[in-house]
Amino acid sequence: VIEGKLREKCAVAAVVGNGDQDMAGYVYESLFAMQHRGAEASGIVSGDSEGRFNEHRGSGLVRDIYDLPAIQKLSGSLAIGHNRYSTNGSKTAHMQPYIDSSLEFGFAHNGNLPVVGPLKQLLEKNNIKTDRFNDSEMMGLAVARFIANGNSLPDAVELAYPYFQGAFSCVAIHDGMVVAFRDRQGIRPLALGSFEGGRVVASETCGLDIIDAVYDREVEPGEMIMLTKDGIESRRLAESDSKLDIFEFVYFARHDSNLYGQSVNAVRRHFGQQLAKEHPLTDHADNRIVVPIPDTSGPAAEGYAEAIGLSLRAAVIKNRYIGRTFMQPTNEVRSKQLRRKHNIIPGEVKGKDVIFIDDSIVRLNTMPRLVELAKDCGAKSVSVLIASPPVRFPDHYGIDTPDQKELAAAHMTNEEIRKQINCEYLGYLSLGGTVAATGIAAEKFNLSCFTGEYPISIGEHADHITRPVSMEGIE
Amino acid sequence: VIEGKLREKCAVAAVVGNGDQDMAGYVYESLFAMQHRGAEASGIVSGDSEGRFNEHRGSGLVRDIYDLPAIQKLSGSLAIGHNRYSTNGSKTAHMQPYIDSSLEFGFAHNGNLPVVGPLKQLLEKNNIKTDRFNDSEMMGLAVARFIANGNSLPDAVELAYPYFQGAFSCVAIHDGMVVAFRDRQGIRPLALGSFEGGRVVASETCGLDIIDAVYDREVEPGEMIMLTKDGIESRRLAESDSKLDIFEFVYFARHDSNLYGQSVNAVRRHFGQQLAKEHPLTDHADNRIVVPIPDTSGPAAEGYAEAIGLSLRAAVIKNRYIGRTFMQPTNEVRSKQLRRKHNIIPGEVKGKDVIFIDDSIVRLNTMPRLVELAKDCGAKSVSVLIASPPVRFPDHYGIDTPDQKELAAAHMTNEEIRKQINCEYLGYLSLGGTVAATGIAAEKFNLSCFTGEYPISIGEHADHITRPVSMEGIE
Amino acid sequence: VIEGKLREKCAVAAVVGNGDQDMAGYVYESLFAMQHRGAEASGIVSGDSEGRFNEHRGSGLVRDIYDLPAIQKLSGSLAIGHNRYSTNGSKTAHMQPYIDSSLEFGFAHNGNLPVVGPLKQLLEKNNIKTDRFNDSEMMGLAVARFIANGNSLPDAVELAYPYFQGAFSCVAIHDGMVVAFRDRQGIRPLALGSFEGGRVVASETCGLDIIDAVYDREVEPGEMIMLTKDGIESRRLAESDSKLDIFEFVYFARHDSNLYGQSVNAVRRHFGQQLAKEHPLTDHADNRIVVPIPDTSGPAAEGYAEAIGLSLRAAVIKNRYIGRTFMQPTNEVRSKQLRRKHNIIPGEVKGKDVIFIDDSIVRLNTMPRLVELAKDCGAKSVSVLIASPPVRFPDHYGIDTPDQKELAAAHMTNEEIRKQINCEYLGYLSLGGTVAATGIAAEKFNLSCFTGEYPISIGEHADHITRPVSMEGIE
Amino acid sequence: VIEGKLREKCAVAAVVGNGDQDMAGYVYESLFAMQHRGAEASGIVSGDSEGRFNEHRGSGLVRDIYDLPAIQKLSGSLAIGHNRYSTNGSKTAHMQPYIDSSLEFGFAHNGNLPVVGPLKQLLEKNNIKTDRFNDSEMMGLAVARFIANGNSLPDAVELAYPYFQGAFSCVAIHDGMVVAFRDRQGIRPLALGSFEGGRVVASETCGLDIIDAVYDREVEPGEMIMLTKDGIESRRLAESDSKLDIFEFVYFARHDSNLYGQSVNAVRRHFGQQLAKEHPLTDHADNRIVVPIPDTSGPAAEGYAEAIGLSLRAAVIKNRYIGRTFMQPTNEVRSKQLRRKHNIIPGEVKGKDVIFIDDSIVRLNTMPRLVELAKDCGAKSVSVLIASPPVRFPDHYGIDTPDQKELAAAHMTNEEIRKQINCEYLGYLSLGGTVAATGIAAEKFNLSCFTGEYPISIGEHADHITRPVSMEGIE
Repeated sequence: VIEGKLREKCAVAAVVGNGDQDMAGYVYESLFAMQHRGAEASGIVSGDSEGRFNEHRGSGLVRDIYDLPAIQKLSGSLAIGHNRYSTNGSKTAHMQPYIDSSLEFGFAHNGNLPVVGPLKQLLEKNNIKTDRFNDSEMMGLAVARFIANGNSLPDAVELAYPYFQGAFSCVAIHDGMVVAFRDRQGIRPLALGSFEGGRVVASETCGLDIIDAVYDREVEPGEMIMLTKDGIESRRLAESDSKLDIFEFVYFARHDSNLYGQSVNAVRRHFGQQLAKEHPLTDHADNRIVVPIPDTSGPAAEGYAEAIGLSLRAAVIKNRYIGRTFMQPTNEVRSKQLRRKHNIIPGEVKGKDVIFIDDSIVRLNTMPRLVELAKDCGAKSVSVLIASPPVRFPDHYGIDTPDQKELAAAHMTNEEIRKQINCEYLGYLSLGGTVAATGIAAEKFNLSCFTGEYPISIGEHADHITRPVSMEGIE
Repeated sequence: VIEGKLREKCAVAAVVGNGDQDMAGYVYESLFAMQHRGAEASGIVSGDSEGRFNEHRGSGLVRDIYDLPAIQKLSGSLAIGHNRYSTNGSKTAHMQPYIDSSLEFGFAHNGNLPVVGPLKQLLEKNNIKTDRFNDSEMMGLAVARFIANGNSLPDAVELAYPYFQGAFSCVAIHDGMVVAFRDRQGIRPLALGSFEGGRVVASETCGLDIIDAVYDREVEPGEMIMLTKDGIESRRLAESDSKLDIFEFVYFARHDSNLYGQSVNAVRRHFGQQLAKEHPLTDHADNRIVVPIPDTSGPAAEGYAEAIGLSLRAAVIKNRYIGRTFMQPTNEVRSKQLRRKHNIIPGEVKGKDVIFIDDSIVRLNTMPRLVELAKDCGAKSVSVLIASPPVRFPDHYGIDTPDQKELAAAHMTNEEIRKQINCEYLGYLSLGGTVAATGIAAEKFNLSCFTGEYPISIGEHADHITRPVSMEGIE
Repeated sequence: VIEGKLREKCAVAAVVGNGDQDMAGYVYESLFAMQHRGAEASGIVSGDSEGRFNEHRGSGLVRDIYDLPAIQKLSGSLAIGHNRYSTNGSKTAHMQPYIDSSLEFGFAHNGNLPVVGPLKQLLEKNNIKTDRFNDSEMMGLAVARFIANGNSLPDAVELAYPYFQGAFSCVAIHDGMVVAFRDRQGIRPLALGSFEGGRVVASETCGLDIIDAVYDREVEPGEMIMLTKDGIESRRLAESDSKLDIFEFVYFARHDSNLYGQSVNAVRRHFGQQLAKEHPLTDHADNRIVVPIPDTSGPAAEGYAEAIGLSLRAAVIKNRYIGRTFMQPTNEVRSKQLRRKHNIIPGEVKGKDVIFIDDSIVRLNTMPRLVELAKDCGAKSVSVLIASPPVRFPDHYGIDTPDQKELAAAHMTNEEIRKQINCEYLGYLSLGGTVAATGIAAEKFNLSCFTGEYPISIGEHADHITRPVSMEGIE
Repeated sequence: VIEGKLREKCAVAAVVGNGDQDMAGYVYESLFAMQHRGAEASGIVSGDSEGRFNEHRGSGLVRDIYDLPAIQKLSGSLAIGHNRYSTNGSKTAHMQPYIDSSLEFGFAHNGNLPVVGPLKQLLEKNNIKTDRFNDSEMMGLAVARFIANGNSLPDAVELAYPYFQGAFSCVAIHDGMVVAFRDRQGIRPLALGSFEGGRVVASETCGLDIIDAVYDREVEPGEMIMLTKDGIESRRLAESDSKLDIFEFVYFARHDSNLYGQSVNAVRRHFGQQLAKEHPLTDHADNRIVVPIPDTSGPAAEGYAEAIGLSLRAAVIKNRYIGRTFMQPTNEVRSKQLRRKHNIIPGEVKGKDVIFIDDSIVRLNTMPRLVELAKDCGAKSVSVLIASPPVRFPDHYGIDTPDQKELAAAHMTNEEIRKQINCEYLGYLSLGGTVAATGIAAEKFNLSCFTGEYPISIGEHADHITRPVSMEGIE
């Protein structure tokens, strides 16, 4: 496979009990809460303090993959788990966690390695043909080889760490220990919590809440924590140079999660308030309604409506049994499923000046259709406000953005996009406003989707980055 | 099985093309849009104008049961379908549509027959032992026997109709024809629409919208419509005495559906506005937030917040991969899954005077837990407003309410319920206010869950109805 | 489907206990013993004396289809079962027993109806489109309709019986009773036995032996027996005009079964002894070996070898995990699997004058290949003796012989066949000798495969019967 | 697991093409022909000359596990396969071939290692916990680790070979090469053949015949052969000290296989001839019949009957759809299935002096039942002749004999066994006669089941060997 092509953007979780109680059920709950980060496959590997381990992996939703016998089989007081989002290959290939059953070793990865050359060389030196493995599996293979050579799990991770070049938040299990570690930029999140029965690591804090765990802190960028029955230790693998992906705030994380101490929900409402400052649509206030495009833009719509003093109307209905558009691997499927995803309540928009609020525009698949639907239902006018800047560059760190050529804002000016949407007004939140709304300094973020500045080398991928027709809203 | 015990509250759909194009895919879409009416099983039966038929049925969600080969196998320009909600038996038993493969006859039913004695006698006279069949299957069997005796589909339905005593909206297919018919009270909804390729019948108008069909009218209570390739005919089977179940507005229908010409969403907002009149919590306005309990109470919360002038906050997060509480067959499972269903965003409620808006209280499983969670998150006070009257009587017409003894309001005064919820204020919408908000006359509704007055005989079930401790709010 | 095209040649079994004990396990054993009569599918329907019934059907071998939960589910002291041999359609279609679940009626058929016109008319008069049903299903449908009209099971069978034109040995279950009945010629066998726990009916006596049942008698041609918890009754449906299919002795029945009081094994040895009279290969006796072609011709080879005084050698090995050639639906598959079916032990045949004994030659697929193999292994000469006459006419009563044009002996003289086999000598048993060896009078047999005289009308099929090039060995 | 407890006695096969044609289909045929050596599971691993590999494994019969898509997926001109017989664990665990997918390495083993201590130490030194692996998997793991350390496949096998202490005939695949090797005693057979398209290795020569391959030679004890697209090479891993398991002749191999140049069928007939010398039952010759107990004892019965001049009668019928008794893991299942396995044809034995010939007596489960059946059917007398000596010691080299305490002859004298069988005469073939009949020198055999002399150390197992009550027939 082509380098970095099998991207995965996912959730990881790990629980280590302080006694002998089985912990797979806790990982299950945590994965369940993080279903939004990956609905194509899921897996859990459990082990006991003696190192024996069990595994269960499958395709589909968390609730469908596991049943009581599956969870009961996953005995042991240590467990790691993974939700997988998307691959461009078969659904059963590349399931995580990666497993080496002879070593009783399991490994799960959230993120993406844009540069895998050094890792491949390491493996090939160890007599392993790499062409059938994706980046996550190669990471697992590398750690496994160091273990097979006699190293402990944390030592093996430390030895393999320099070969991992990209974004990764990982958990691994072997021989009575779980480790969790992040790349030094900390592009993908990873939170540490504790509860009565032990400790938990999860990609988002909603994966802690669900098991009544208290958030303790982030796993630091460049840090590895080691969890056993007896407690927790930490080892620094690299200097921290924190670059959290701002897209976690914009779109990816759940409303009720916290990132770096900031409530995702609050940040999103700030996006709306900031939008109100940058794009105050104050005329015809009596006839205006603010309509969030479900599911992510609700708080921004609340913030906007309140700031201006407009009515909020949930006039766009999302069929609750469908994942969001982003979740489907191919573009063809996406458009086909659009109308099953959204319906508009005609009575709400008829005769109104409608303001749609959405979190972002990527391909421009959904919005033109929604505007058309709204106008068919009698909307007098439709304005579109986007609670983030234009996405003009592809992600290479674990979010499945399309190729740059499919990004609307890479090839069109804002005005051209507005025309294609066929709305009366289109406003993006500025980059400055976006960052300001988070309450975190700009240098702490990976902003590459907006700016094209990649904090970690993306290797050969850089050759395919082209200059957008406009950088409006960024400077 | 005990009479009426295998209740099903479901969706039906039927599509008849005006040409030779296969129509199962349209029924699929319609069932998909009505997934909220039944997520345990689904089935489609298709036929062509020559009467040949095919069927596909399975357990689970619509999107999981059908795939391309399944839909392709369902050839023919006529098709009916069904989503099943719940039974108290095995998941694979009692699937709908009911099928008689030798007659190439299919039948699907939304509703419930509280009285099945005459129907049983009819079948037993025909040498059919009825004890393993539920009400829907007995209805299908009765029609099938009349067909086997040489009657056409509409004649067979007409002959069987007098034996159907209860609530039913049905579709059936046989020999190049689809029929759709309702009980004379029209307790369960059934809408008729048309589109370029033919005609469609569906339990809710959202099942019409999704295939771009235009709503034409209700199938009238007591009416049977007959759809063939060549057009539509109507036959009256009983005088209409319309008694739509008000719970369709309160809870069951999708926001974006219309019932009897009224937008469900608008009615629900009126519920909120009416709540504002009956329970105006106007003090501490600056510190108050209105929080809808997802998914149904959003419009009521909008209506309430706007009427009083309070902030609306989506502070309760529902895990989007779980169906609503109502959807799970047993109480035990319900409580176990509660915390997977809802999370509260602490930052939103901390220090606030919170007003929770919910559509109804049935068993009192969820609300005490949510209030506890809110207070744990630092809410200063919690008020609970319910956008409908207390449910004090069981439904017998196709909504799976529990036995009366499990209904909180049947055994507790409002004040006792408030104490159990542990909230500072509890207010129900009055019955008068509820009806007024719909814009429809009270006599057009089945209000039995609130009043205990059953418009259709519930037979022996009446013996088990006891007098609630209070009828507060009803008159 | 074309009349009579979906032929099935199968086994049926039924057990009725004299108490409340479940009997499905007994039917299972009986079906197991009769696996050789049909290996494509199997099904059991059980019922109790109250008429409740259960069913389990599947594709494949008896041992693979049923497991403990399946058998346990099949509760009730009455049970019928069926092994299916072959259809020209899909494997899952046309499974037996035929079931009408609303009537709790099950029906299984061994045989074939060459003429189905009257039966079709009966069904179509009852509003049943017949084009998707095979003969067995139409028989079941007919009985079911008479039951639905208020008749008891035996009355319904009696009413339907005149419409059944062909060969059939059937069992059926309904309302606490099992019936077993045969066509008036009794072309397919059906034996009745009893054991401590009740009574049993099975196509062959090996289906009785396996449950330690004692053979009582044949179900008489034209007779229906009725079995309930309380005992057995008999009713005559037609005059008996017994015409057992001689192919049951030649090939189809198991060695250890009895037919009409004659041991199948003994009759087959008599075939060998008779072959010795008609084709005494007495020269080079010291160098001759008699080699049976497994599995059916062992006794004939024993009889021949002993009669002449030659050595018997099991030099042809049949892979025991493959069914016999007959068992595969298509000719293409047959030839492909030939070499997996047989191997020859070179040391046994090297330098020898080999006499192959086989039960019959149908298509001439196997024998030329075996002779070639033998000669490759060094056989000095190969003679082939067939323990039955040339098959020159197709069967229409439930054995899946090919079209007449595929029957070698319909288009070739014996000498031409010998040349194609490339053997030094070819001898068939004469028709007279075949019949004499059974000890039963010729008029008691259906000999149509050899003579072309069909004792029951085969309707339009007669138009396709052509005159063989030779009738050598028949007159 | 306890050392050596997970015994497997199986078949292995490997095919290497001399071009690019896929070879998995050939391995499939070979495994098919060797189905009798293991019917619980089967697997194939294929690879191409570039080292890429594919695998397919499943539970059940060869014909059920593989279908066309499975075989097509197994692309590549190299392939190895395995049939598994029995484990005392779950059916899905311990499937072979063992696979290391990161190394693209596959390994299959026929035999058993009674001593695994050194192998375990090797693995544990490599950080591999061994307690969940059986002997075959540990062998695979050991070779895999040497490969992971940079060795070629043959070098890795050579490095691991000293740690393999027991009986093993193995095939392995990696990086464009297949190797096949045997323990230095050659206890389990392994034959090498060639055909037009390449070379084949199989446990028995019937696995060569089926693909029209010519037998070239044995893989020598202590030898490893290396097969690539380009040809064959050989390497000696240990001095040969040939000790073929005599049980391959007695029972295990197929009639039509050859072992060390001897026809298994001929040797078995010699067993019968030798029995005639040692136990000539010549009186009442006219009334005597010789009856082989299927499936293995046919040739011995032929030999005996001819030598004495008695009639051979196949009066015991084995249901052809059941594997032999040996094949079922538990004793309980065995007895339950006995009657489904055998039936006796009453007419054959009635009034006769019956001589049963069987290959061996192990647990004494079957024979008493058969004698009882024969007498129930009217046999005048029953003699039992066993074509091998009494089995008084357990096998430790890959045949699943029971614990010594379950071996009848370990605890009873021959006369006691005769009484338990309730036969008039019981005769075993002497050890000397058994060996003489093979035409091979006694020192070339592993005779441990008869003599208790184990040619390879069985380690701690020796502590559990007790002295039989009698050694009659051995000295």
